[in-house]
Amino acid sequence: MIKNSIFFGIVQNDLTALEAELLSIIHSPVHLITEISEHLVQAGGKRLRPALYFLSARCGCDDQAKLQPLATAIELIHMATLVHDDVIDNAATRRGIPTANNKWGNQMSVLIGDYLFAKAFSIVASSQVSGRVMQVLTEVICSMSEGEIIQNQDIFNPEQHEMEYLSRIAKKTADFIAASCELGALTAGLPEAYVQALRDYGYSIGMAFQITDDILDITASSEQLGKPAGNDLRQGIVTLPVLYALKHSPAAAELRTIVATCNMTEAELARGLQIIHETDAVEYSYKLVGEYLNRARILLPAAVPPDIREAFLAVAEFIEMRNF
Amino acid sequence: MIKNSIFFGIVQNDLTALEAELLSIIHSPVHLITEISEHLVQAGGKRLRPALYFLSARCGCDDQAKLQPLATAIELIHMATLVHDDVIDNAATRRGIPTANNKWGNQMSVLIGDYLFAKAFSIVASSQVSGRVMQVLTEVICSMSEGEIIQNQDIFNPEQHEMEYLSRIAKKTADFIAASCELGALTAGLPEAYVQALRDYGYSIGMAFQITDDILDITASSEQLGKPAGNDLRQGIVTLPVLYALKHSPAAAELRTIVATCNMTEAELARGLQIIHETDAVEYSYKLVGEYLNRARILLPAAVPPDIREAFLAVAEFIEMRNF
Repeated sequence: MIKNSIFFGIVQNDLTALEAELLSIIHSPVHLITEISEHLVQAGGKRLRPALYFLSARCGCDDQAKLQPLATAIELIHMATLVHDDVIDNAATRRGIPTANNKWGNQMSVLIGDYLFAKAFSIVASSQVSGRVMQVLTEVICSMSEGEIIQNQDIFNPEQHEMEYLSRIAKKTADFIAASCELGALTAGLPEAYVQALRDYGYSIGMAFQITDDILDITASSEQLGKPAGNDLRQGIVTLPVLYALKHSPAAAELRTIVATCNMTEAELARGLQIIHETDAVEYSYKLVGEYLNRARILLPAAVPPDIREAFLAVAEFIEMRNF
Repeated sequence: MIKNSIFFGIVQNDLTALEAELLSIIHSPVHLITEISEHLVQAGGKRLRPALYFLSARCGCDDQAKLQPLATAIELIHMATLVHDDVIDNAATRRGIPTANNKWGNQMSVLIGDYLFAKAFSIVASSQVSGRVMQVLTEVICSMSEGEIIQNQDIFNPEQHEMEYLSRIAKKTADFIAASCELGALTAGLPEAYVQALRDYGYSIGMAFQITDDILDITASSEQLGKPAGNDLRQGIVTLPVLYALKHSPAAAELRTIVATCNMTEAELARGLQIIHETDAVEYSYKLVGEYLNRARILLPAAVPPDIREAFLAVAEFIEMRNF
């Protein structure tokens, strides 16, 4: 059973097989590696990236065995970045359960992240993928690290522009989701235009996904998120709703001071959230989400088989409606 | 100019070209990435792994351009592991200069490490290497992470056997040095037995190298090391000289208590080092180094050209004599 997964129907079997493969691949003679990795796999997640990979691949390939290795690598890479992110953010919970750094410490979490990266590339290396597949995968990890570094560099800095935010979340999130679609299409051997269209669909989905993530940090409860609400603001990560409020709120100067505050108090955080809520920041951000999702829907190639198209559209709809 | 490099003559030009390539490849539009990476490249190092790669490759290949990408990837991977190691060990200096975590914090160092890993694989992915090369490289990173995880799991634990120590340093160090030789031989297209022999040479060199590293932690001054002396003991890393003393010292019980002490005082550390020095621990460890180096010398295939053989032998000699 995959916790939190939104994917039923068409790629359900692929995702069930993926869970088994993830648990099998992370098994190590070093007991602690198995223990921590199992914790990470069993913590679940939406499996958005491998699901989009499978959906794209299923547009032209019926061979589950051929598709499996890259899906596993994609999810391992995602897991590795999450483990390192949680170290960087000093996060105590994710999806409502303790993070690896919380249970096993930062040192072990850095190492486990490296191990998962290596394991992912080891799978790819032994599965005879093309040079292009390898390049897409490695470039996307460079891009994600760059995005995280830029984000880290820009914390507690209210002087940012929307374009900088969008470029950062593209690197941090959308590029990887785009690559997941591209890799599926490449593995299925689809024509170049088809590959590009699915990649572009994934990019738009990824942008929408990250913006809703950033909105939920402002609007959702800690219970819904499985992690503390207002976390981004607390850590100085300046997201789209914050940028909007910094531009349009009558209390912008006060918000600017709060955004720039390291170790802000709960009262300062609450006041910051209040200032944002008193503007149209959330509506504005959802409007942008809607635009990206419309773009995603339009980009879907006509050649996508109807049942897969339905699943691709369901992903877009989920992102619009999601509250976790 | 490569600081600390012990390689002159035969692969000097290769290593000079490598320095230029490292500085060029880590250049990023994100200024901070360039800044931190330049710091890491310019901090120098022995460049042991790319040098052994070049020496092995030069046994059968004269094409510098063909050899360059993997050498760059090898050193980037090594740099990435060092950055993460310094985070894990909370190290303030390496080779006498401030570590990245000291200058830019742990968060940025985790990210830079990931970026360097990704960059290394991105180079490999775009240079059309064989599946086998890719597999050797990915497996060695898995092995290194495993070694570090085992080490981290075993800290402050005096109940260890020499075999466990040897297996740990094989994973942590020797496997990568073996792989550097193997990758050079593979890139040069040498026959399988030749590849294996150079790999085995590298493995023995790697074991000897790590044991001398662990001896120097006990015998050298902080100035010689460029980092605090006795660092391993302070951090609970149980090395060969410590294991020997735990077995043979009349003060073994006292040493056992010191080894198991987190946050040991300078006096406890000094007493621990004294107990070790009062045994034959250092002599015993150097004896094992000598055995590994003899093995390395014997393993060198007869077909190695004389000038390259001389360099390979010089590496072995350097390890026996080194004091940094």
